[in-house]
Amino acid sequence: MLLQASIDWNLRVHILDPDPEAPCRHLATQFAVGSLLDYDTVYRFGQSVDVLTIEIEKVNVEALEALEREGKKVYPQPAVIRTIQDKRLQKAFYRQHGLPTADFILTDNRADVAGYADFLPAFHKLGRDGYDGRGVQRIASAADLHKAFDAPGVLEKAVDFEKELAVIIARNANGEMQTFPTVEMVFHPELNLVEYLFAPAEITAEVNEQAQQIARQTAEAFGIVGLLAVELFLDKDGKVLINEVAPRPHNSGHHTIRANVTSQFEQHWRAILNLPLGDTDFYQPSAMLNLLGEDGFTGPARYEGLETLLGMSGVFPFFYGKAITKPFRKMGHVTVMDTDMDRLREKVAVVRDSIRVIA
Amino acid sequence: MLLQASIDWNLRVHILDPDPEAPCRHLATQFAVGSLLDYDTVYRFGQSVDVLTIEIEKVNVEALEALEREGKKVYPQPAVIRTIQDKRLQKAFYRQHGLPTADFILTDNRADVAGYADFLPAFHKLGRDGYDGRGVQRIASAADLHKAFDAPGVLEKAVDFEKELAVIIARNANGEMQTFPTVEMVFHPELNLVEYLFAPAEITAEVNEQAQQIARQTAEAFGIVGLLAVELFLDKDGKVLINEVAPRPHNSGHHTIRANVTSQFEQHWRAILNLPLGDTDFYQPSAMLNLLGEDGFTGPARYEGLETLLGMSGVFPFFYGKAITKPFRKMGHVTVMDTDMDRLREKVAVVRDSIRVIA
Repeated sequence: MLLQASIDWNLRVHILDPDPEAPCRHLATQFAVGSLLDYDTVYRFGQSVDVLTIEIEKVNVEALEALEREGKKVYPQPAVIRTIQDKRLQKAFYRQHGLPTADFILTDNRADVAGYADFLPAFHKLGRDGYDGRGVQRIASAADLHKAFDAPGVLEKAVDFEKELAVIIARNANGEMQTFPTVEMVFHPELNLVEYLFAPAEITAEVNEQAQQIARQTAEAFGIVGLLAVELFLDKDGKVLINEVAPRPHNSGHHTIRANVTSQFEQHWRAILNLPLGDTDFYQPSAMLNLLGEDGFTGPARYEGLETLLGMSGVFPFFYGKAITKPFRKMGHVTVMDTDMDRLREKVAVVRDSIRVIA
Repeated sequence: MLLQASIDWNLRVHILDPDPEAPCRHLATQFAVGSLLDYDTVYRFGQSVDVLTIEIEKVNVEALEALEREGKKVYPQPAVIRTIQDKRLQKAFYRQHGLPTADFILTDNRADVAGYADFLPAFHKLGRDGYDGRGVQRIASAADLHKAFDAPGVLEKAVDFEKELAVIIARNANGEMQTFPTVEMVFHPELNLVEYLFAPAEITAEVNEQAQQIARQTAEAFGIVGLLAVELFLDKDGKVLINEVAPRPHNSGHHTIRANVTSQFEQHWRAILNLPLGDTDFYQPSAMLNLLGEDGFTGPARYEGLETLLGMSGVFPFFYGKAITKPFRKMGHVTVMDTDMDRLREKVAVVRDSIRVIA
């Protein structure tokens, strides 16, 4: 989607991807296969381009730091990626900068976690390498302590939240910042994946201002150049807390491709190329549903119910071109738009009941 | 742009293009270089795909007819392309189907045209191979008769028009039809190229209904599967006449990428794949300016004033990735959107005065 947003501006985009069958291979100006975790691979690739950016945090930061030292433009900056890569550093960063976030304790191993039974219920999160719900365990009570990771992590007090929100913010090298409207995410009860999202969030002006303000403060604290997706909790007392952040285009901004004047992907290009940031206003309220591979199906993907979707107005399916579906694999998403919130919710229900990714 | 509209649906698109440096070469699933006018090249290419479509009418129709006879889906149908390729057949088709169009006389050569001095002022149009204003001569009076083409053509009575309009219509194999809102085009006074366009057109409901109705009648008369762009004159008496048609995505629909629920490009895919046609409603009024290479500059293209455009809200530049600019070459376009027509016109003026394609 980032590549798609580059086409109208004729940007020459070179991609490094570990998967020789990556769906984007036909869209890039140049496509190289290689590990994002290998120092030499990343370093050599970075030398061949003018500006280097990432779409996933799990990347060799040492190579990015070397490139940055040599004067290469690397956005987001390696120091930002390094902090965000490790949930322990990330949480410590919020505390250090006075940014509101759930209380937490840094833990070294499972035995360490066992000493904090009075801190429960909490979530134990692996410091590094978690992604899309992997690397997170809910520790409701002492009986769950065996589920804690036996590796450096962070024990985070469970927030009794009303809603999960997100604000995507862009910042360019001039320091110009622009937020997208606050969205509301509904997570899959088991998978810890965004199941669907409504934009804008149905929240009070006061809560919205908290969310937008926190996003601005966080982007400024990081000094990031690029996009920062700030995931937030709205607790039962109306207080907004940072859950976690991602320094790149994010699932909570996919609806912006259709619903907003500027998409998150175009905004990322604007930010890292130090262009004026785009207007983030929306044309109509929207929703986004992730299309996950149906449980029980593995193999070449088939999309059931597609004609129903294409027969509806303001319903936009996006398929990611992944050849093989697996249970709960993110295979695409659907954006739904309407001027009326009730009709929007009705459409979302029809879409959810119509489309299945099977094999 | 047609390729771009295929990406979200994972369509596998193979392209045949005579230019090895065609800007789309990095976007196609497969890219083949070859002449669109060579029977064998077109025939063999067509055999390798499931559905064949075109983006330019100047193509070997005999090869398309052979493929169609063998059961290949060729949309638009070769018979439609054959009629439209030749302005003589096209005009005769309108007369035969009772579709309103300016009066005309078929002519064989220049001497032939000279016999119709009492039919002037008129336009003499080459039967075949005209494009973007090439192949059209205004014959204001007998003194201009030497400008007539010495080849088969059509002498068309000059219409004293109030406005030039266009309606793009899609028709799928089920016979479902859907029109886009009527737009208003302003042509460059010398180049016979669309200089800019406003959507929707500022016309009465009655004129709009004529335009929409003519588009439907024309698509039905052709029985076309795919897009048909119907260019129209609104004469001083409030009567709408067909100027000419194109059986493909068209310059008069480029604004739909941003301004409409469904773009003309997505609609073309829907039509030729016999999917339900998409909603053509628009989010906001829009305008489109063609970006022509500045007179006096030939060479590697540079875009002056781009930052001004990117600093405006609702202004979307599209560059076609052509490496070399030439005087008046179509290098891209800019879509401008606003909820307010006056602000829209102001923005158009700023854009027109800001951007230049130079070398």
